Parts: sequence; C-alpha cells; structure tokens
Amino acid sequence: MVFSFPIKTRYVETAQDGIIHHSSYVIYYETARIEFLKHKGYDINEMEKQAILSPVVSLDAHYLKPLRSLEQIKVQVSVHSCSRVRFQILHEIFKGDEKVAFAITTHCFINAAFRPISIPAELLQSFRKDVELKKEMP
Amino acid sequence: MVFSFPIKTRYVETAQDGIIHHSSYVIYYETARIEFLKHKGYDINEMEKQAILSPVVSLDAHYLKPLRSLEQIKVQVSVHSCSRVRFQILHEIFKGDEKVAFAITTHCFINAAFRPISIPAELLQSFRKDVELKKEMP
Amino acid sequence: MVFSFPIKTRYVETAQDGIIHHSSYVIYYETARIEFLKHKGYDINEMEKQAILSPVVSLDAHYLKPLRSLEQIKVQVSVHSCSRVRFQILHEIFKGDEKVAFAITTHCFINAAFRPISIPAELLQSFRKDVELKKEMP
Amino acid sequence: MVFSFPIKTRYVETAQDGIIHHSSYVIYYETARIEFLKHKGYDINEMEKQAILSPVVSLDAHYLKPLRSLEQIKVQVSVHSCSRVRFQILHEIFKGDEKVAFAITTHCFINAAFRPISIPAELLQSFRKDVELKKEMP
Repeated sequence: MVFSFPIKTRYVETAQDGIIHHSSYVIYYETARIEFLKHKGYDINEMEKQAILSPVVSLDAHYLKPLRSLEQIKVQVSVHSCSRVRFQILHEIFKGDEKVAFAITTHCFINAAFRPISIPAELLQSFRKDVELKKEMP
Repeated sequence: MVFSFPIKTRYVETAQDGIIHHSSYVIYYETARIEFLKHKGYDINEMEKQAILSPVVSLDAHYLKPLRSLEQIKVQVSVHSCSRVRFQILHEIFKGDEKVAFAITTHCFINAAFRPISIPAELLQSFRKDVELKKEMP
Repeated sequence: MVFSFPIKTRYVETAQDGIIHHSSYVIYYETARIEFLKHKGYDINEMEKQAILSPVVSLDAHYLKPLRSLEQIKVQVSVHSCSRVRFQILHEIFKGDEKVAFAITTHCFINAAFRPISIPAELLQSFRKDVELKKEMP
Repeated sequence: MVFSFPIKTRYVETAQDGIIHHSSYVIYYETARIEFLKHKGYDINEMEKQAILSPVVSLDAHYLKPLRSLEQIKVQVSVHSCSRVRFQILHEIFKGDEKVAFAITTHCFINAAFRPISIPAELLQSFRKDVELKKEMP
C-alpha cells in the first residue's frame, strides 16, 4: 500500500534563502506518517494515552529539488522494512509528477519506562503484508 | 526586578522576506519568561509534573523594527500586573540599546482538570513586590 | 466577506503540556490570512518578488479553549478595519461550532527600503467594502 | 578541529510525548553548523547576500537518548569529508559526557541559478586540513 497525503507548504516554513527549510520536510514526513499509521489502525494520540511511544530512531533524508512557499505537494508513505521490534517508513515528496525529496525513518516501540517493546501484533502483520507486496511489484 | 535574557536569532527563524518571522518572537518571549519565572522559584518542568499549568490567556505583541538572522538580542522580562488569579508579563526585546519589539502576555494557573486555581502564594507575593517597585520607579 | 480556511493541528505543534503551543496559533492565523489575501487578489509571493512587504505591526491574540494534536479546526478571516496605510485582520478559530481562539493583527505595506507605502488601491477598495458590509450586519 | 556549541533546549521544542521533537535536533545541528562555518570564515549571511547558497543535500540523523525541556546540551561539529564540490559535516550532541544524538549532513554550493559551484578555495583548504587531522588522530 502506498498512502498519499497532500500538504501545502507554508510561508513560515521558508527561510531567508527563499526556499522551504530542510527541517520543515521532517515535519511533512511526520504529518503524513501519522495519517498513514492511523489509516493502519495505529492512532498516535490513543497510543500515547496508554504511554506507548514510537520514537524516531534514525532519519535518512535526501533533498533533490528546492520547494518554495505555498506549493502544493503530496507525501507518499509506505513501509520500507520491518522486524519484530523495528520498522522503517519510506516517505517521498512529489510536486506534480516530480520527486523532490525522500526520507527513510526507523522506529521502534517503547513503553512508559522507555523500554523497547514488540511492535503490536496487528500492526506488524499489516507492515509485513505491505513489505511482501512491495517485493512482488515489478 | 527586570530580568534580562540574551538570545541569538536563528537562521531558521527567518522567512523568505529576509527577516525574523513574527511567530519567532513569541518563542523568544516564552524562552525568556520561563527563565524569569524559574529565577522567581517557579520551575515549569517541576510544576507540570504536578499537573499545574500556567497557559497563555492572551498575547498583545508589538513589532517596532525588523530583526535579521544571527542577531544578538536581549529580552527584558518583568511583571506588568497581577491579581489573585491572573498575572501579566511584559517582555521587551532590545538590539543594543534600541527597543525593537515588546509584548504583554496574560496568564492564569490551572490544575489537571483545566480548572483555574490561585497563583501559588510565594509567587504571588514576589509578583506583587515587583509591581509595587515598578510603581515607585520615577 | 468571511473567509473560512480548514487546518488540522499537527503533532509537532503540541508541547509537553499536551496541548497545541500558543505560538502555533500565530502560524494558523498567518496561513489562513495568506489564503484570504490571495482570494482578494493579493498574492504574497508575487508581491514579495516586487519587494513589497506587508509586515505584522501588532498581534492581539486571545486563547479561549485548548486545542489538541490532530484536531480539525477552521480559521475564519475577515477585515476588521482599514485606513489608507494600515489594515486589521480578524481571525477566529473554531472547533466545530465552538470558538476556541481569536486574534486581530495590524499590518502596513512597506517597500524595499522598509518605508511605509499606501495600501494598493484595489486591495484598499476591497477591504473597505468588507468593513462597510460588516457594519451593516445585524 | 572540533567545534563545540552550547544550546539549551526550549520548552516549545517538546511535543506531547514530553521529549524534544526529532525535528528540533535538525535545528540544533544547523545552528551549531552555522557558527562553526562562521568560525572558519564562511558567514552565511554574507554569502547569501552574494546569492551563494550551501543547501543541505542529505541528512543522516541518529537519535540515541531522549532530550527533555530546558536541558543544557552541547553540539560538537567537525568536517566529516570533503571533495571539490561536496562536503560532509558531523554533528554530535552531548548531555554532560553522554552522546545523545548525532547526524551527518552533506552540502554543496550553488549560485543564484541553483547551479553547483566549487567550494570556495579557502574554505576547501580549511576543510581538507580538518579531514587530514582527523585521520591522524589515534
């Protein structure tokens, strides 16, 4: 499954060089990822009420073309890989048909004591199905 | 008491017009105010652990001169007024000797149920002393 | 004319107190205002290319109810007042039918030398019509 | 040369999970990197006035331990590698003696037409010296 989430870049997200600041992409990625995970049954607000967090362990981000203020983009989100305790999400930003940036984030799950826990079973199953489907794609 | 807190404007806080975005001043004010309140014995982290919050009820901000990236400023913070349940903080931003912006914020205290509570007694006393001293200033 | 712009609060816009940070509202206001002004024929990107800026002179913001992560809100924007050189915009944030915050911003127009200039004639006319219509409302 | 820059985490940089948001680290890295480059004779404000930009091509960030509000950290910055047209900067965040996060950013130089240009000669020389010294370290 590839999930697509539309975002319009904000004026405030530019810097004095006239382009969208690279830190704003990190927020676009998260915003789209949260919607993607909610679509998969993982509601970040609900989980955090139960003191289950899913922090970013690492972020590998690539910037291909600059973005400007008030541009309409879409963020495509998909599962890149997963094990029992870690999963990776691929995010790709498109302006029209052109890919302008992408990033892979690695996440785990932790409990209130900040101890790693397994990925919730249903979510893991859904992630694995996505990874399998991706492999089969031509 | 006037409390002075130094801040250097950040590159990311500019927008495409080449000046510091007006929303960043709100963060400068808060950053300096938190240090000011800590100096007065109110530690925001400690209070929030006890589920006591002090939200911003209103913000009246004035922008006099633009700020640019990587400028050294200082934020002067003082108590503007206070009652048993509300207090106002005055923040003034100076670049060298020139005042470039100022804002008055109004705050209350609330408990975990978001119900208003009185200002903690010691803090109220300290606020009142500051307000009295201000009146006496020529 | 009242212009309504939908926004979904972002996770990153919360702080450790669990609610949307007061500085994020300033960004919601701007985001909606830029769309409102574009709707009126004033395109901020186009104007800034011509080195005409419309900075925020002041901001008077009121916070009525807290907002949380991932809430759907709408920002209603309208002209509050205008003269030849200054105009005020009223922004009201609604969650469902409930008003949760509002702010009035004051703006002027400046040229590349940061000198005040008159509000562009067409925009002024449009602003004045809005102010007149508002007065006539019951 | 390892350059060390002190930063205090800001309240606003937390999110509802009570820890500093991962996008804020990206800003810490940039803030320290700009000071590091200035120390090396590259002043970002001066260069951008001449329409020479040095965008982030990629960012590889790793999060080891959470940070909380109002913590004193230091960001150590050094040159990781460089060629004639690209350079990499290593950033490491320490809380006391503990490394809590690090990131490598890759940068190039571009002109007003967004065309790649060589790294300015003096800066390149300085980068190369740093890379050599690093290799010699035990």
